[in-house]
Amino acid sequence: MKVSKASDVLANELRERILTGEFPEGVGLPAERDLVTQTHMSRTTVREALRILEVQGLIRIKAGRTGGAFVQRPGEEAMASTVNLLIRGQQIRLADLLGMREAIEPYCAQLAAANRTDAELELLDAAVAALTDDEGPLSTFLEANVEWHVLVARASHNKLLSGMMTALSQAIYAATDDEQFVDLEVRHTTARAHATITAAIRDHDGEAAVRRMTRHVHSYAAVVLGADEDREIVVP
Amino acid sequence: MKVSKASDVLANELRERILTGEFPEGVGLPAERDLVTQTHMSRTTVREALRILEVQGLIRIKAGRTGGAFVQRPGEEAMASTVNLLIRGQQIRLADLLGMREAIEPYCAQLAAANRTDAELELLDAAVAALTDDEGPLSTFLEANVEWHVLVARASHNKLLSGMMTALSQAIYAATDDEQFVDLEVRHTTARAHATITAAIRDHDGEAAVRRMTRHVHSYAAVVLGADEDREIVVP
Repeated sequence: MKVSKASDVLANELRERILTGEFPEGVGLPAERDLVTQTHMSRTTVREALRILEVQGLIRIKAGRTGGAFVQRPGEEAMASTVNLLIRGQQIRLADLLGMREAIEPYCAQLAAANRTDAELELLDAAVAALTDDEGPLSTFLEANVEWHVLVARASHNKLLSGMMTALSQAIYAATDDEQFVDLEVRHTTARAHATITAAIRDHDGEAAVRRMTRHVHSYAAVVLGADEDREIVVP
Repeated sequence: MKVSKASDVLANELRERILTGEFPEGVGLPAERDLVTQTHMSRTTVREALRILEVQGLIRIKAGRTGGAFVQRPGEEAMASTVNLLIRGQQIRLADLLGMREAIEPYCAQLAAANRTDAELELLDAAVAALTDDEGPLSTFLEANVEWHVLVARASHNKLLSGMMTALSQAIYAATDDEQFVDLEVRHTTARAHATITAAIRDHDGEAAVRRMTRHVHSYAAVVLGADEDREIVVP
């Protein structure tokens, strides 16, 4: 099998122009036929290059008369999809996902206590309120749960941390969608923990935010992994 | 512009068969012409699908008579390249990279103290020895530095953590390749820190490993960010 690398050359060139800001977010790339004319490459090569950039989350392709290839900056979604591929491809265990979470969430909470805006605090309050209704289906609980964790990470104002948490949350959600793991008691404990951590973030109390988040993610991991309260799970 | 989504359909199907293990690592996919026959799709569509999988790190395409598309599992490299795209695309600051590192490295060190094999310890010792030659060029120092950090993460036996550290290390390497940041004193301090953390990992002393790694990554961040020793940098 022989694969033309001309499409790599074109994809690399367009990628650089996007990443350096020469093609800013939202701008349309030249039309396919214009790229063919400009580059003297075949239509197939040009399309392949555009597909590569699309897979990497650098352009969004819209069909139709006002369509085309529009520049976007790779964000949380690109990171989430790669992390999900990695998790599935390497058959990464739930314990490892929860371990990564134990490493980064206390730090997210500390940064959120320092950096959160009033608007972000309002979103956190709303996500806490959504959790207190414990009569609903499990999926509603898990969605509100994930939503709050992602909001804390975003309030850290570190995009690397929030990208990682978005990715982890989706995978942990999928892995814990089971009544056996998450009973009513877990729901109540979770709701209380989210409320007290949110209070620490409101008060800019980084120390309390770290301490409470550490306890929260550690005990959630213990429950989900089916361990006794006493079983040792490594915490940073 | 109109983009055929047939290649997505084929890419999705092949991706599932790779991730579920039906096509195991190292196995060759059917030849391009056989995929064309089996799927009734055009040659262009089949090639586009294969390119998508290549960009996602799920196949490696080799040219020549014994060539073809060979299955690989997405690993550290796929994660590193996405994280690098995210860092450049979102213009993530060095402070955020170092912050992510402060979040995950102490935890890596703790897991390494628990899980490291004798072979991994030997590699760590070799990386410590490579750092003590402080007469060499900066690039040699930085390579040995990065090598040791990635080895600690691998010894954690958590592939998510080691993938993230590989990605971060490459970006931090690129950002700190400057004599202004890393003088002889920083080299000596780094060499000493790596030696004492490696000793804790050797002795399975998780507590010391966390404490020393926390201090090490925190003070490296302080130096690189040009801060006084006293300037507050958030540590988990």
